[in-house]
Amino acid sequence: MSIIELIERKRDGGRLTPDEIRWIITEYTADRIPDYQMASLLMAVFKEGLDGTELAAWTDAMLHSGDTLDFSDLEAPKVDKHSTGGVGDKVSIPLGPMVAACGVAVPMMSGRGLGHTGGTLDKLETIPGFRTALDPPEFKAILEQTGLVLAGQSETLVPADRRIYALRDATGTVPSIPLIASSIMSKKLAEGLDALVLDVKSGRGAFMKDFDGARALAQTMVDIGRTYGTTVTAIITDMSQPLGREVGNANEMAESVEALKGGGPKDLLDVTFRLGEEMLLMVGAVADDAEARHRLEETITSGSAFEKLVEVAVAQGGDPAVLENTALLARAPEASVVPAPASGYLSRADALAIGVAATRLGAGREHKEDDIDPGVGITVMAKVGDPIERGEPLARVAWTDRGRLDRALTLLESAFAVSEEPVEPPKLIQGEVR
Amino acid sequence: MSIIELIERKRDGGRLTPDEIRWIITEYTADRIPDYQMASLLMAVFKEGLDGTELAAWTDAMLHSGDTLDFSDLEAPKVDKHSTGGVGDKVSIPLGPMVAACGVAVPMMSGRGLGHTGGTLDKLETIPGFRTALDPPEFKAILEQTGLVLAGQSETLVPADRRIYALRDATGTVPSIPLIASSIMSKKLAEGLDALVLDVKSGRGAFMKDFDGARALAQTMVDIGRTYGTTVTAIITDMSQPLGREVGNANEMAESVEALKGGGPKDLLDVTFRLGEEMLLMVGAVADDAEARHRLEETITSGSAFEKLVEVAVAQGGDPAVLENTALLARAPEASVVPAPASGYLSRADALAIGVAATRLGAGREHKEDDIDPGVGITVMAKVGDPIERGEPLARVAWTDRGRLDRALTLLESAFAVSEEPVEPPKLIQGEVR
Repeated sequence: MSIIELIERKRDGGRLTPDEIRWIITEYTADRIPDYQMASLLMAVFKEGLDGTELAAWTDAMLHSGDTLDFSDLEAPKVDKHSTGGVGDKVSIPLGPMVAACGVAVPMMSGRGLGHTGGTLDKLETIPGFRTALDPPEFKAILEQTGLVLAGQSETLVPADRRIYALRDATGTVPSIPLIASSIMSKKLAEGLDALVLDVKSGRGAFMKDFDGARALAQTMVDIGRTYGTTVTAIITDMSQPLGREVGNANEMAESVEALKGGGPKDLLDVTFRLGEEMLLMVGAVADDAEARHRLEETITSGSAFEKLVEVAVAQGGDPAVLENTALLARAPEASVVPAPASGYLSRADALAIGVAATRLGAGREHKEDDIDPGVGITVMAKVGDPIERGEPLARVAWTDRGRLDRALTLLESAFAVSEEPVEPPKLIQGEVR
Repeated sequence: MSIIELIERKRDGGRLTPDEIRWIITEYTADRIPDYQMASLLMAVFKEGLDGTELAAWTDAMLHSGDTLDFSDLEAPKVDKHSTGGVGDKVSIPLGPMVAACGVAVPMMSGRGLGHTGGTLDKLETIPGFRTALDPPEFKAILEQTGLVLAGQSETLVPADRRIYALRDATGTVPSIPLIASSIMSKKLAEGLDALVLDVKSGRGAFMKDFDGARALAQTMVDIGRTYGTTVTAIITDMSQPLGREVGNANEMAESVEALKGGGPKDLLDVTFRLGEEMLLMVGAVADDAEARHRLEETITSGSAFEKLVEVAVAQGGDPAVLENTALLARAPEASVVPAPASGYLSRADALAIGVAATRLGAGREHKEDDIDPGVGITVMAKVGDPIERGEPLARVAWTDRGRLDRALTLLESAFAVSEEPVEPPKLIQGEVR
């Protein structure tokens, strides 16, 4: 096969056969197709797309580029959740323990923050000692022991995705529906799940800036799941403003613990419950929505979900003291405030600007190799639609470095807007695809 | 500047500023932008194009990536010709001596064959001893001495083009009008010319498969020339069938000598005269078409053009004996024939198939590093529209290796078609852009 002929065909809007796609992924992963040819092909795919047959083959070739996990000897049904990434999105941390406390196994594989979006692994690692790099036997052992595991993806799973994602990140080919969908689904299908719930974010702070794009991505991923016989449901949720109040790492961990202890902001709880209900329903652990809701609420009131988080933290080497008392979590030494410029109603709290501002503070990575500062972050004090008094704090900023603070404040000041007229809050849960 | 942001902007149909384009070309040539990012950008440019301002900046940045030549101290006007490449296109070899014999300086820089198209340098090198790699001082000295020089491009001219062309060749981004136009024009503008005539080929055997594409490419290059104050005329000529009879290297050299001695096929002469007339007119060496034609014909009848070829061959180290007696040129030991499958009129002599067949014989390069076999080639015995008798030879093949012959014959047999009805020959000279 000639990679140049395949690039030319895709460039001109033609289709690649499943054999050709398998060959491309295999040869690229084995270093027999150079980065520059793959980069050119990725841009052609970005512009011309992949049809259903091509996308299934692309996902399958990625999925089989490395090991896959097999938990079929575990009796409990296995279900995971994946979010397409947002700002303030700490849902995995309360959700995993809540669902696991209902007796469903949750082998949760998460990622690190990149660009303006945070990563669950960075948040978990604010628990001193917590190890997120587990090899497959240890991953399975902890899942068997606690019914929950919160870790990064093993290096041996879907190596093609790691290679291709890094190249996409460097070549302007990230926000392509077939490339995003195949990247996510190949990793999730390698986990040996019975079911998967997807939280597809829509809005300024998400990959998909509008509902139609989010729905198209959701449908594409649900369709891929169907061809593998894995039950997949996608919930489309708002990411025009951050989810919850906290944007950072240690502060998001504290907010997650607060949610497990019966507090926490309403939008965070609404999304967490909605996803949890789907997870229980998909594996038949409950009869209906109402039972699901009841079971999940009980994990909070009984304390069983919080205990599950402590249990898994200990199993993964973490010090549970910071969970018992979140004041012990890292906290940046300095604090500043962004005051409201006028009285009225909050009309904008731009998730993208706030996410980039948090990254500039040191909460995220501008480059893959950057270290994060666990104690910095932004607390967003108001939601779109809230009445606002001039001068009241719209955001509190915890910071370490004044240069970084200045770069963050430049963005934060334009992230918020106040309207004289009442403002309708955005719809949080916008749709579902199954 | 961020190369990723520039890739994203071009990918989404936006424009790059002249400063941004200059930065990209400079940094890529200096190895500070990696191939994979340039490959992604080139595919985005392929899909989204460059507007006039972008194209002018791109060409200018390439032009200034290395040395430029200056012949302003030479009294004679300086004019070159460039062909976009075809099959059997040996026009440069008779044309250069004819125009130089009229007193116009012709600093002719040519290329090597790649893919299905031949290269003037490979044909010239069938003259034993002929050196096509000249450094700028020697290039200029021969031009001063003889009024003609036939050489390859110096390594120090337009290094950006060499880098970018090699990458385009490997990434499926060759046939893009702005990328072709900037590649050709940056090299020609670096030659210090007063005028340039372009032979833009149109048809199956050319980059541009139809007249509209060829005209768009021609217009783009003429426009670039205008911004530099260099007179550029483009003649659009047919490349649906090979030009002349011979396709190869030594056989094309022999046909070129035949043309300079008053023989040669009509189509080769028609294109050569048409381009020569333009060259003389553009620099004001003649008053009108008729005078140009007369002067050029005189260079044949007087023998001055042939003498000019001998003179320049000697100046460049070549043995003129093969020009005096072309039977001394290399010739492959074996010969085969492709017979006409039916009686009627020749309706197809596919330049692309015949060019690829010649490459398979060894006359061209499938890969840049391949050696060529100077003595192999194809003699096309009939032109589209000619009456044909079943069994008469449509092509004669001179070959060395039977395996290569078999691969060539497979193509050659389907390259020709014969119709029962009379066939209109294609129009040879299809248009001009100035």
